[in-house]
Amino acid sequence: MTKAAVLGAGSWGTVFAKVLHDAGTEVTLYARRPEIAEAINLRHENPDYLPGIQLPEGLRATTDLAEAVEGADIVAIAVPSQTLRENLRVWSPLLPPKAILVSLMKGIELGTGRRMSEVIAEMTGASPDRIAVVCGPNLAREIGAGQPGAAVAACTDEETAKRIQAACMTPYFRVYTNTDVVGCELGGAVKNVIALCVGIAVGLGFGDSTRALLMTRGLAEITRLGAALGADEHTFAGLAGLGDLVGTCSSPLSRNRTFGENLGRGMTLEQTIAVTKQTAEGVKSSEAVLELARKHSVEMPITEVVAQVMHHGMSISEAASLLMSRSPKPERYGL
Amino acid sequence: MTKAAVLGAGSWGTVFAKVLHDAGTEVTLYARRPEIAEAINLRHENPDYLPGIQLPEGLRATTDLAEAVEGADIVAIAVPSQTLRENLRVWSPLLPPKAILVSLMKGIELGTGRRMSEVIAEMTGASPDRIAVVCGPNLAREIGAGQPGAAVAACTDEETAKRIQAACMTPYFRVYTNTDVVGCELGGAVKNVIALCVGIAVGLGFGDSTRALLMTRGLAEITRLGAALGADEHTFAGLAGLGDLVGTCSSPLSRNRTFGENLGRGMTLEQTIAVTKQTAEGVKSSEAVLELARKHSVEMPITEVVAQVMHHGMSISEAASLLMSRSPKPERYGL
Repeated sequence: MTKAAVLGAGSWGTVFAKVLHDAGTEVTLYARRPEIAEAINLRHENPDYLPGIQLPEGLRATTDLAEAVEGADIVAIAVPSQTLRENLRVWSPLLPPKAILVSLMKGIELGTGRRMSEVIAEMTGASPDRIAVVCGPNLAREIGAGQPGAAVAACTDEETAKRIQAACMTPYFRVYTNTDVVGCELGGAVKNVIALCVGIAVGLGFGDSTRALLMTRGLAEITRLGAALGADEHTFAGLAGLGDLVGTCSSPLSRNRTFGENLGRGMTLEQTIAVTKQTAEGVKSSEAVLELARKHSVEMPITEVVAQVMHHGMSISEAASLLMSRSPKPERYGL
Repeated sequence: MTKAAVLGAGSWGTVFAKVLHDAGTEVTLYARRPEIAEAINLRHENPDYLPGIQLPEGLRATTDLAEAVEGADIVAIAVPSQTLRENLRVWSPLLPPKAILVSLMKGIELGTGRRMSEVIAEMTGASPDRIAVVCGPNLAREIGAGQPGAAVAACTDEETAKRIQAACMTPYFRVYTNTDVVGCELGGAVKNVIALCVGIAVGLGFGDSTRALLMTRGLAEITRLGAALGADEHTFAGLAGLGDLVGTCSSPLSRNRTFGENLGRGMTLEQTIAVTKQTAEGVKSSEAVLELARKHSVEMPITEVVAQVMHHGMSISEAASLLMSRSPKPERYGL
């Protein structure tokens, strides 16, 4: 029987542990806070992150990292992306040397521009065939409630990807394998910038045509960037690219979309920031992504205007007219 | 100056004529019904199809086909897909022998399985370099109101595609060229089946994760079919594929999505048909598409269950569990 540990008992970490358990994998969930571990063990719920979602009785939680990872074949990590490096500094010595390390995180490390799997490689010294990512358009609450969802298990080593797939495929959660780790991670990181722009369009009162235009051309520019960074462009038409983009841009719950909507409705940037509790990821990452694009001479017109609006005082109407007055192009230019 | 005619004064034909006019093309709109031509000429609106949308004064309409197409460099056709063949039987002798013929229609001819551009080729004898399609995720009302939209102008001959692009690109309507006519036409025809399935999921109460799963895997099966039929698989990640799918699946106004929603909420097929005024295109085309898929040995699991539900009495729950219990797969199998 495969044995797994999930490090991080936030909403997605907890749900992914449930998915592993439901797939027949023996799983221990590591929680930093004792009250969360206790609630999961005694009441089978995680009231802070997933109130009302019933967790399986066989799902064990602990605050002891060594206990959580002992004998694990798979160690899945779900901590806030910007804390990954610090966490791994402490955890690395305790991780089983042969375990597959799976990133469940989305995002790019600020300052270094590293993807999560790169941070894992640096901090643990694990070889690429032991490092995987699982990603896709999944909202923790929905999958936790048993709604049908799907994800990609990606590893440069296909056998490793298949082992992850076997460990977490259930009747409500379909998992597909992919060997393009770079593409899978980029899709999740860049989509927030496009979601911001879709939000602005919705706030301006535009409808489905404009939304579909921005999502499609947004995906085209993500794909151009991915191709320049060595990803397989087909990945962007899959669950980690298109799927995640559709999920984020359709959901009225998306922080990035909501941030954009407020701007589109006429709030100033300052007002929008003031009413937004958690930072919208896309605000920060628009500059980081643009920097990457410029370094690789990739045209990313949507990211460009989003970065200008968020950081350099460009007005929304100026941004819209810049986007719509670009020169005529073939649909697949730059690829 | 480029001269164009648009044949068919329904909602999209009328709006496309407006787009051509706004792009600086001289355009005449052919309407079958005199009262529509008159309203367009005198009141600059099309009250039957686009109430409240102001049309430009320079946009002329006529009920005289010969007058409409006289001297036209571009003849765009926007009639109901199943009437195209009969219309062309009458119109063909009148069309200028060098004009580019542009299909604005989506759909597959019942009985023959022909795409619209194929029907145009058969009925007019025009060579491929004179036959183009313009398609994309555009709702007539939104583009008519000047909301930002985008489309693909596709022709096997790139120069022809560029001429169309130049004739209809405006500050609110971006047009990209593509040489893959087959892919552009298939995307629009097959997406309705996926929209039906997304509707069923919404009716069952499922959220964004399930929707994103169905749209992404739906696009994957459309892409497999397209590749088998000689289309460029990249087209499906563009405006005519993903774009059109996103537009249709997001819009609560989509007939196909609504039809599926009623089924998902527990209505029987008979009840759903009874409350649906116009036929949902995907109901009919699910069988036609499936037939095509079987002929080319392409796996289309979503289309398969939709056809079973619509035509062979499969229950929704049976369909859902069939979809979710398929064997584990790589994300890009069959491509």
